[in-house]
Amino acid sequence: MNKLKISIRVNKLNQSPIRKFFALVERAEKRGIKVFKLNIGDSDIETPKEILKGISSFKNKNIHYAPSSGIKEHIEAWIKYYRGFGIYLGAEEIISTVGVSEGILMTFLAISNPGDEVIVFEPLYANYPAIAAMCGVKLVPIRLKLENGFVLSSEKEIIRKITKKTRGIVVINPDNPTGKAWGKKELEIIAKVARKNNLYIIADETYREIIFRGKPLSMLLFKNIDDNLIVLDSISKRFLAPGIRLGVVVSKNKEFTAGILKIAMSRLSAPTIGQLATIQILKKSRPFTKKLTAEFKKRRDIVNNVLRKMKGVVTYLPNGAFYQVIKLPVKDSESFIKFMLEDFSYQRKTVLVSPMEDFYVSHGHGRDEIRIAYVLNVKELNMAMEVFKRGLQAYLCLKP
Amino acid sequence: MNKLKISIRVNKLNQSPIRKFFALVERAEKRGIKVFKLNIGDSDIETPKEILKGISSFKNKNIHYAPSSGIKEHIEAWIKYYRGFGIYLGAEEIISTVGVSEGILMTFLAISNPGDEVIVFEPLYANYPAIAAMCGVKLVPIRLKLENGFVLSSEKEIIRKITKKTRGIVVINPDNPTGKAWGKKELEIIAKVARKNNLYIIADETYREIIFRGKPLSMLLFKNIDDNLIVLDSISKRFLAPGIRLGVVVSKNKEFTAGILKIAMSRLSAPTIGQLATIQILKKSRPFTKKLTAEFKKRRDIVNNVLRKMKGVVTYLPNGAFYQVIKLPVKDSESFIKFMLEDFSYQRKTVLVSPMEDFYVSHGHGRDEIRIAYVLNVKELNMAMEVFKRGLQAYLCLKP
Repeated sequence: MNKLKISIRVNKLNQSPIRKFFALVERAEKRGIKVFKLNIGDSDIETPKEILKGISSFKNKNIHYAPSSGIKEHIEAWIKYYRGFGIYLGAEEIISTVGVSEGILMTFLAISNPGDEVIVFEPLYANYPAIAAMCGVKLVPIRLKLENGFVLSSEKEIIRKITKKTRGIVVINPDNPTGKAWGKKELEIIAKVARKNNLYIIADETYREIIFRGKPLSMLLFKNIDDNLIVLDSISKRFLAPGIRLGVVVSKNKEFTAGILKIAMSRLSAPTIGQLATIQILKKSRPFTKKLTAEFKKRRDIVNNVLRKMKGVVTYLPNGAFYQVIKLPVKDSESFIKFMLEDFSYQRKTVLVSPMEDFYVSHGHGRDEIRIAYVLNVKELNMAMEVFKRGLQAYLCLKP
Repeated sequence: MNKLKISIRVNKLNQSPIRKFFALVERAEKRGIKVFKLNIGDSDIETPKEILKGISSFKNKNIHYAPSSGIKEHIEAWIKYYRGFGIYLGAEEIISTVGVSEGILMTFLAISNPGDEVIVFEPLYANYPAIAAMCGVKLVPIRLKLENGFVLSSEKEIIRKITKKTRGIVVINPDNPTGKAWGKKELEIIAKVARKNNLYIIADETYREIIFRGKPLSMLLFKNIDDNLIVLDSISKRFLAPGIRLGVVVSKNKEFTAGILKIAMSRLSAPTIGQLATIQILKKSRPFTKKLTAEFKKRRDIVNNVLRKMKGVVTYLPNGAFYQVIKLPVKDSESFIKFMLEDFSYQRKTVLVSPMEDFYVSHGHGRDEIRIAYVLNVKELNMAMEVFKRGLQAYLCLKP
């Protein structure tokens, strides 16, 4: 009898739906199958030269700890970056984090005690449920539906979820996994509810500039929510450097940032080299993110041109990020994904996508849905979609 | 009335005793005072050339995510590193972490549910209490005393602290903050108690090679504790690259490593550039760590030659790491530290050390103790100790 067990909180964690097929992919590749990986938000597009140069020109003789709140020049670069959107921040309102993942963890720890609740919109980036479970936070989901383009229609939908234990509302804008860019009206609803009910707004703006219509809409531009608002931001997606592990937590609520700083001290600092290497791109980001957004728009269109013609597939046109959710005419998308990796290839090629079930907090949703990430170049994406289409046809013939 | 409060778990966190004087230091420096920083484990010694070259020669066009468990070649380099100590590990037994800080957090989450207990020896590296508080872990301290050279004398001392809720025992070897290198007999006591009582051993071996007598003694060399043992290891201190934010969790307990991997997935990955840049030094570490250890031994002797002659100071000769704890003839060492930063200088120089109170889990201990870190070169350390001696004299004259 082994008493050396794992905790309940970790035992009930799911493996990441984005990362759990790693072993099957390796096996397919060993058999000589090319796997188009449309599962993970890690694009083929090159990291900006400014960052690569920042790394290769690292000249220090020591790799010292950074201050727990971040290296001064790095934080100043973020201030300048935000100024470009008409957002004015002080250095003490920005704390460097090891990616948004750490930002979520720190925020949940700081705003909640075990058993407290946070309202989220589902489907939801799958790491939120995982991190919430570790922090003892209960996520209370509001379901947004593919068929309605994931629109939040009224204040009521949120209000009826609020209890004495509710501490905040998470909004990911543009959204992962849906690619939805939140509208001004919808965000106003969230701001209003948060103001009235003294709730935190946790605005995850990792994909801020990647929107295909209109201007980036940060919650930092909304009035009278200074004490409510916590913005999570990241270098990873916008500057195509997810492996650099850098983000920030931004807030004008002094008690909150003081709490975050204490947590930050307990893990010493975020990576030093990355903080130094990203100063230049933060100060002059727009030319890069404009080009990037145009590229993702092209990719979105390629994917959707194929999807629109596929029988039984339900989809919509996303306005941001580089993901979308689609409904397939299958019972269990995980079984379809395994089929694609184990039993199917077209011209010795196959495609990996993510199953959606773990992007839902509520049990049993999303079994017939998948997430596609547009992380390959136009040529490969065209091929991948052709393979995907044929794969689904084959699966439906075999398992109707 | 602000309902947007901080959680209890974060509110009760202390600021890091190592990092909380940052503002006072800045002010002293603005007045033109040179501050010798003997507070933080971040040495002046240069990071190995192999690592610096690994960074400046980073040639990838993308900074992709690493696998959640670590980059294959990086993990293989750790395997080779351990083989040098007669320790044989498989790749699935090592998981890359964002420094030992993250290793502690992941381990506490994986082995405990809120309210569970972990036995520690105090004084204790101050980040353990902070991370335990965030995870809802109750630390149960066994006090080791400066006057006895911090020796653990018998099994009984541990056994009487074990309850139904006890999940593990933390041993930091060599120790931060005491510089104690644990003896084989003492470690045998821990192994025996853990075996008998089915407890995890969390062996933090960050400073493994930095010992001034005998050979490095890893708990991985002990028999019949494979399921109990969790080793936390780090690039930071041994290779003088704390800002690179890299460590590993090592265990042969498959259920435990599966749990850690799920947590690792929820934060995606440890920094990519650092993992690649440290492969070479891990494969050939001994010449570097030998030189490093000789240097720290020299520094230990300089510090202790001064301390031994200081009236009213209680000390001992540490055998490892680059810290030591000393008792001062003052009531409140924090007040002495503030005096040094605000009201004292000698030849426009002063010294910063860490107050010990927050290194104790039990309330009220260590108020007359400080931690010194030997992180300056011989010349500066000589000066710093002279300034320290005069500072203490002045403080005692003014506040006897």
